[in-house]
Amino acid sequence: MTFAIGYLGPQGTYSEQAAEAYRQQLHGQGDTELKPYPSILQVIQATADCSIDFAVVPVENSIEGGVTVTLDALWQLPNLRIQHALIVPISHALLTKASSLSSLEHIYSHPQALGQCQQWIKNNCPNADLIPTRSTTEVLGDLQKTTNTAAIASEWAAHLYDLPVIAHPINDSPDNFTRFWVLGTQDSQQGDFTSLAFSLPVNAPGALLTPLQIMSRASINLSRIESRPTKRSLGEYLFFLDLEASLSEAKVQQSLQALQSCTETLRIFGSYDASTHAYNLNKHG
Amino acid sequence: MTFAIGYLGPQGTYSEQAAEAYRQQLHGQGDTELKPYPSILQVIQATADCSIDFAVVPVENSIEGGVTVTLDALWQLPNLRIQHALIVPISHALLTKASSLSSLEHIYSHPQALGQCQQWIKNNCPNADLIPTRSTTEVLGDLQKTTNTAAIASEWAAHLYDLPVIAHPINDSPDNFTRFWVLGTQDSQQGDFTSLAFSLPVNAPGALLTPLQIMSRASINLSRIESRPTKRSLGEYLFFLDLEASLSEAKVQQSLQALQSCTETLRIFGSYDASTHAYNLNKHG
Repeated sequence: MTFAIGYLGPQGTYSEQAAEAYRQQLHGQGDTELKPYPSILQVIQATADCSIDFAVVPVENSIEGGVTVTLDALWQLPNLRIQHALIVPISHALLTKASSLSSLEHIYSHPQALGQCQQWIKNNCPNADLIPTRSTTEVLGDLQKTTNTAAIASEWAAHLYDLPVIAHPINDSPDNFTRFWVLGTQDSQQGDFTSLAFSLPVNAPGALLTPLQIMSRASINLSRIESRPTKRSLGEYLFFLDLEASLSEAKVQQSLQALQSCTETLRIFGSYDASTHAYNLNKHG
Repeated sequence: MTFAIGYLGPQGTYSEQAAEAYRQQLHGQGDTELKPYPSILQVIQATADCSIDFAVVPVENSIEGGVTVTLDALWQLPNLRIQHALIVPISHALLTKASSLSSLEHIYSHPQALGQCQQWIKNNCPNADLIPTRSTTEVLGDLQKTTNTAAIASEWAAHLYDLPVIAHPINDSPDNFTRFWVLGTQDSQQGDFTSLAFSLPVNAPGALLTPLQIMSRASINLSRIESRPTKRSLGEYLFFLDLEASLSEAKVQQSLQALQSCTETLRIFGSYDASTHAYNLNKHG
């Protein structure tokens, strides 16, 4: 049996590091194959269509916040469940063939990476133009040819694309982590964390009070609340909740029954465990 | 007296439409000048520095959700207050010198506009490459020269840059609105809406229950709740709340006192009125 694991490519992204970490967790259960996709949405859709077995996709970053495409796709594709959560430390490097920072005119990267290094860039390359890309590694193949252009990506990407690192780390905040979800179509009832989302029958965010009271009375800790628009009308929201509890617990099942009666649409994304993975260049390189 | 109003440029963006609407509201109070900036953050910083009087910046879109750079900047710059809210209907057009949709190889726009038209593009230009830009109008000046490239922007932008509209409207959802805030440094205590944000002393989103109970007991309706990372550590959040009530009401003042005691840092962004502005090409053109 071969498991196909999709991620936001091309090779060398933080998503690939997370996918590689999940591949190692599947060790012994079968062969594995990593497949890059050009967008997060395409990775998720390929999993919902069963073209691949798993999507390893970012869900939130400690600096930039939620990855809305992941939340929105999970709400819209009813057969997806969360199989696992992976926390990956993000350590950005500046990759370039330029000989000095002062000669840099253009810096390319994913908008989240540009956002996470904005103070450093302002202090060190104040005249560089920041250009958004679809992933941290999209333009790395073209970087060999220029001496006035850099990209923000990981040291692992620098190694893969044989590009010099002129500065590292360049994150404004040293505590920079991205949490990834592994999505699949298998039912998932076991694990320390449970995620769900709902819309409310009364279109007022204040109606969130009742769901929070239900969780509080059952002594269920919430580790995250995030709102997203319903896309129906300005001012109507969905709420995504992460619970520090498992679907296998009676108090969770009872709370979900109570939630059914005070929400409009309730979606349960499953229970799952979480693990943290620091990337080791020596191990991979 | 001349009021300088900053917005995300270049000319022709939806932000410029919102800035133009606010300029009309200031009619009779003095001269006004609209100033384009290359990024939302730069508009907001120029206002906090008092280089300009007002920043007209997007805060949320009904499809794509919150504009995180606006929320994060407002939290970080303590002298800013919300002066007004503007709701602008978003109606996207496809601008190109190409003679047919099938000849399009590249479509440029701001990531939010690309997101808002993704189904339409998939159905009508399945082979086009989507390229993110810093604003809907960034590349319009270059579009005259190509016949395989298009951009998503407003009809007003098509008029300004003298570009043909090959399709309109192309939004996936007809109910597409963006809410803008007018930020300034004047104190703002009057108006039907109040916005605030807080961090919580207990680093658990479940601690949001107490603030919501305070609002509920005072019969204050909430029109929006949005979480943002504190940027200190993964799993620590700020909460932004919009209240349908004014700082001039006693119940709001009492609730804010109660909030002081259950929050870590509480920031009050002021009270303000809201207005809706449909853009009229004939009037402007």
